[in-house]
Amino acid sequence: MEVKKDMGRKPETINVNTEYKNFPMVPRVVFGRGSFDQLGAILMPRRKHSEAPFIFLVDDVFENTELAKRIPLIFNDQIIFISAEEEPKTTQVDVLVDKIKAEFGELPSGIVGIGGGTLLDLAKAVAILLTNNGSSSDYQGWDLVHKPAVFHAGIPTISGTGAEVSRTTVLLGPEKKLGINSDHTTFDQVLLDPDLTQGVSKEQWFYTGMDCYIHCIESLTGTYLNAFSQSYGEKALELCKEVYLGSLSPEESRDKLMMASWHGGMSIAYSQVGVAHAMSYGLGYLLGVKHGIGNCLVFQHLEEFYPEGVALFHEMRQKHDIALPQGVCANLSDADFETMISVAMNMVPLWENALGKNWRETITPEKLRSIYEKI
Amino acid sequence: MEVKKDMGRKPETINVNTEYKNFPMVPRVVFGRGSFDQLGAILMPRRKHSEAPFIFLVDDVFENTELAKRIPLIFNDQIIFISAEEEPKTTQVDVLVDKIKAEFGELPSGIVGIGGGTLLDLAKAVAILLTNNGSSSDYQGWDLVHKPAVFHAGIPTISGTGAEVSRTTVLLGPEKKLGINSDHTTFDQVLLDPDLTQGVSKEQWFYTGMDCYIHCIESLTGTYLNAFSQSYGEKALELCKEVYLGSLSPEESRDKLMMASWHGGMSIAYSQVGVAHAMSYGLGYLLGVKHGIGNCLVFQHLEEFYPEGVALFHEMRQKHDIALPQGVCANLSDADFETMISVAMNMVPLWENALGKNWRETITPEKLRSIYEKI
Repeated sequence: MEVKKDMGRKPETINVNTEYKNFPMVPRVVFGRGSFDQLGAILMPRRKHSEAPFIFLVDDVFENTELAKRIPLIFNDQIIFISAEEEPKTTQVDVLVDKIKAEFGELPSGIVGIGGGTLLDLAKAVAILLTNNGSSSDYQGWDLVHKPAVFHAGIPTISGTGAEVSRTTVLLGPEKKLGINSDHTTFDQVLLDPDLTQGVSKEQWFYTGMDCYIHCIESLTGTYLNAFSQSYGEKALELCKEVYLGSLSPEESRDKLMMASWHGGMSIAYSQVGVAHAMSYGLGYLLGVKHGIGNCLVFQHLEEFYPEGVALFHEMRQKHDIALPQGVCANLSDADFETMISVAMNMVPLWENALGKNWRETITPEKLRSIYEKI
Repeated sequence: MEVKKDMGRKPETINVNTEYKNFPMVPRVVFGRGSFDQLGAILMPRRKHSEAPFIFLVDDVFENTELAKRIPLIFNDQIIFISAEEEPKTTQVDVLVDKIKAEFGELPSGIVGIGGGTLLDLAKAVAILLTNNGSSSDYQGWDLVHKPAVFHAGIPTISGTGAEVSRTTVLLGPEKKLGINSDHTTFDQVLLDPDLTQGVSKEQWFYTGMDCYIHCIESLTGTYLNAFSQSYGEKALELCKEVYLGSLSPEESRDKLMMASWHGGMSIAYSQVGVAHAMSYGLGYLLGVKHGIGNCLVFQHLEEFYPEGVALFHEMRQKHDIALPQGVCANLSDADFETMISVAMNMVPLWENALGKNWRETITPEKLRSIYEKI
């Protein structure tokens, strides 16, 4: 969620409003089926000494599984299993940081997140808060982190969020759902092993992949785009189409969806999401609806804004026989609707990207309520 | 020029031969028309102190131009203008390193390369040799560099080589033309300003863009490919087609060719080039033919290996009215041919990628001579 301005034109004078982001990329990436077995060797040179452990934050669906046994524990390394049932919270980050600080005499060698967007975002946030004082909620916003995080690595076990490559970690705070957007957020190392996504349920696979698809539709049709982000977004979109509408082998499909997520995440460098993400933030904040499914719930009703993208979405949904939940907003009060609408309308850069500077002419509280009521 | 093995299959046991490369990506990139004006601000936090200069290695076509005046010199920073008429040499690197060491009391804050592949490769090599003893020829090969280089930034002024993103710097040494392939070779910062490519002649624009195009054809049809490299290669190829066969505005065309080069360079992570590059190395070694034009000279005669790719190449060449030099090998002696053939046949990973393990059944000295004779 970067605020980007005037990306398309050449600045006449140096001015903070016309500066191009100096985008941080993940400095190390390994890709390959079975590459998870290289994790021990990859982490070894990052170990400060035997008393400074690696802490593995792992989705608790992997507790007592083969994958958990393959985590290369040595010395006093620790695995912390965490449920990804709910979106990551600032309070959760703060508790984890306090626990790690209390348990070990010094900073860990690093944090490794293994899981979906929730676990990856938690790993990023914990790594930041281990070296930056205060609560994680203090850092929600743009470029508020000033000290480098401890080394942190991300290993996705589901594809689509782009969390493995982005410079944000989106957290549900006491007052807002907002990312810690900073150059220190980006992972120092990412390991992409498509085999790890084998056990994902069809529904999860669909909703999380659609996070990438919807993100591409929003950024490619947005007003903030430049050639850098366009090229990544187009490739991600193409790969999504191959995966959800083509006839790939399961292995190829896992490979390609992992790359779609990667390129989709990169495309955010100089682009921005749009209507679905803005409204999905409202659903997430009020009801705890997870990001992937929340995007789908909103996007299905956005023909007005993204006619081709929504048509293709329905084609993919039907092909994979996905029934979206219904009546999600059926029993909400006026106050509930107002809360969601207020959260959504606060996402100014997203609306500007989708509809331009005059977005308020189209987007009114009534308009948003009418869409939320369909969900 | 990475040696990659068994990229497509899952390793049963951990084994150096089945390891996936932990690929170093450029950790910072800025993209945008006019972004060159941000260079001063980008370098500022990298300055060690006022006595440790930035050394700018700049293509001498920019001497006395507007661009040279825009280089943000402060303190004792220095510009060294260098001709890119010839391919970069190990002796040239060694002389530059000695000069910089003699002139300044301590290591510079960093090296900035501004130019095409030659200048970018020189900048990488000089940065490495400032902290690693001996001659640059000692490091030609794979993973022979053990100490981190000084900070180095790359700013391409022509698109296509991929040198801005690769982990190699290809140098002509006393005995061989070979890259310094290492994790320390990759730039710490890249600035992509498509406006800088405005003054390139049509011929240079074509030959250098074809470096990217040919590289994509070779890697996408090769045996070493995996989904990571395929996705980057496909995008680069698509962008090349838009640029050379589409009808883009000049601005869009510069933007897209810069991104084609970037993605093409990334695709090398888990792929390899093929027949044209192998044979072009022979031409470069014996005759000093530059890489871009050398690839074109060879590739035009490779219908047998890349039928579709060569057909499209001729379409692009005709559309842009490019007349390739003829009779380049007309007056060579038998010994000359043997030298080129020997250099080319030494490129084992390239041949394996192109034709599989049994490449020697197809590629004989006679076969290569018959192709060289057409050039």
